[in-house]
Amino acid sequence: MLAVLNSRVNHCWSTELAVVTNLDPSRRKPASTPLDDLTSLVADDLKAVNDIIIQRMHSSVDLIPQLAGYIITAGGKRLRPVLTLASAKLCGYSGERHRGLAAAVEFIHTATLLHDDVVDESDLRRGMASANAVFGNKASVLVGDFLFSRAFLLMVDDGSLDVLRIMSQASAVLAEGEVLQLSTSNDTETSEQAYLEVITAKTAELFAAACQLGAVVADRPKTEEEALRKFGMNLGAAFQLVDDVLDYSAFQARLGKTVGDDFREGKITLPVVLAIQRGTEEERDFWRRCLEDMEQTDADLEHAQELLVHHNALRDTVERARYYGAIARDALGHFADSATKRAMLDVIDFVIDREY
Amino acid sequence: MLAVLNSRVNHCWSTELAVVTNLDPSRRKPASTPLDDLTSLVADDLKAVNDIIIQRMHSSVDLIPQLAGYIITAGGKRLRPVLTLASAKLCGYSGERHRGLAAAVEFIHTATLLHDDVVDESDLRRGMASANAVFGNKASVLVGDFLFSRAFLLMVDDGSLDVLRIMSQASAVLAEGEVLQLSTSNDTETSEQAYLEVITAKTAELFAAACQLGAVVADRPKTEEEALRKFGMNLGAAFQLVDDVLDYSAFQARLGKTVGDDFREGKITLPVVLAIQRGTEEERDFWRRCLEDMEQTDADLEHAQELLVHHNALRDTVERARYYGAIARDALGHFADSATKRAMLDVIDFVIDREY
Repeated sequence: MLAVLNSRVNHCWSTELAVVTNLDPSRRKPASTPLDDLTSLVADDLKAVNDIIIQRMHSSVDLIPQLAGYIITAGGKRLRPVLTLASAKLCGYSGERHRGLAAAVEFIHTATLLHDDVVDESDLRRGMASANAVFGNKASVLVGDFLFSRAFLLMVDDGSLDVLRIMSQASAVLAEGEVLQLSTSNDTETSEQAYLEVITAKTAELFAAACQLGAVVADRPKTEEEALRKFGMNLGAAFQLVDDVLDYSAFQARLGKTVGDDFREGKITLPVVLAIQRGTEEERDFWRRCLEDMEQTDADLEHAQELLVHHNALRDTVERARYYGAIARDALGHFADSATKRAMLDVIDFVIDREY
Repeated sequence: MLAVLNSRVNHCWSTELAVVTNLDPSRRKPASTPLDDLTSLVADDLKAVNDIIIQRMHSSVDLIPQLAGYIITAGGKRLRPVLTLASAKLCGYSGERHRGLAAAVEFIHTATLLHDDVVDESDLRRGMASANAVFGNKASVLVGDFLFSRAFLLMVDDGSLDVLRIMSQASAVLAEGEVLQLSTSNDTETSEQAYLEVITAKTAELFAAACQLGAVVADRPKTEEEALRKFGMNLGAAFQLVDDVLDYSAFQARLGKTVGDDFREGKITLPVVLAIQRGTEEERDFWRRCLEDMEQTDADLEHAQELLVHHNALRDTVERARYYGAIARDALGHFADSATKRAMLDVIDFVIDREY
């Protein structure tokens, strides 16, 4: 899948697309988003998933449900479990297995968030103090391990070795992606290809697995499993690209969220890769000082944002996201029209055009 | 099992045993230990396990096999996988499934070591620089996650949901034990009961699972599975108790190993619990200053060692280990005499009487 993704990406580089995303800060967040609409379609299932999450994060060791509850109830979008539920619905599944598996997906995602924040030394997550800032790094590492184990217990309860294989494979790739990201950190020579490998592994793979599970529980043919996997993989890549754009977006600051986390951590994301490629030698010195030598001030962040705009690096990163979005859209071509399918397609655009 | 273990422990407290372990530093390490003998009995299998470990820790992300290889080949005793292999042999198993599962056990153990060292901020492991000291905390957390995922992939390849349930349950309990240990850290009011809960969860549970797997692959009746689980659980408790004694042992220093890691980290282990219970008010002030307020000098470590000897706290901790060793011995009563059984019984004494 990675090879397919990358060969498509390479093809994309030669195309100059005219569509520009809406990064206008004056645009208001609508009352109901396409993600809200998709979530409404699986509302009963999602309520059951939340109940399973509460039940399965329980432990007689009080700190575990305290810390896990802190991050799990901290206002996440539940995007990945919603995708599992929606994918199962798209496949006409009418049982309940997808609920436990969606909870497992969210547990694995949460475990990686906890470990990510320790790795990134982040103080904020979704605009709130991160779990490691509140409970300490040690507890975050260990509760991540606990949730990871409980995710596998949920899958064992489900009883499908296919599911267990998909998810243990996804977890290993996810960890590989995080390690790969470590190697590209502070390296301003990072190529677009290397960046794509990182986000495919650390983000897109879990989206792919989350969607694939929908076809597996519904016992659908391999073609549908692959179609949903492709949908998730490309949606995940688009999601991460836009996330990396938003980290430099001035509009984020207006929403009370932090801007420039990636910059301060010396993470090399696609907007930066593009700006470095397109920049002058003097600009490259600037990026090296800030992201390799890690000598930076608040004024440097502002200058970085100016360079990213000047070189159209944010706009073109969103264009790359739109390209993956188109592949995700095509992947659902296999399925007959339905309210669920339409809502899933709308979520693609939402993921790309969101401002938060 | 925990309840059984603890009720037996409570019964034990009322008994004063006369046997004293050999902590004499002049005693030489024998050329061949009982663990070496047990390892020889499963030598072919263990070689295959090592091959599987090398093969399955591979990743195209170079840092992963580098870091994993560093810790896995760093001279560990392979005690847990050897127990899986020996348990299967004891059950008359002649297939090869136990090899992959023993590798999975070692992967899970290694993942917890990597996360432990991050949590403990340890610079040394088995007398060498710890992986986090060499490769950094971030890589240690993520490679731990990778090995954990690969352990589950190995079990999925094996294909037994029973195995997957035992190991995901054990992993969750292990993480719970580590979190529980965090809560008792720096708390000089920690009871013997609380300490036992910690070591049962963080150490004994994985020993229990490792042994139980031997009966599972051999498809033996539940009674044998339970017997091996009990053997592992009590051997694991004994192992951890002696580990906690050795951390204060003067003989360790002669072997070039660090002494006093637990003391410096403010960990409350059984020797300390006993010394605090038996100490004067002035001594309790000393322990509080060193382990709660974390104000300590090298001279304080020496004073702590003197107090532990004065109150027979090291000796009596080894006595507790001997008690668990006796239960482990009884657990094997179910099995007919064989070279494997005799070697496993000898390992109990070795675990208790070892000086390293």
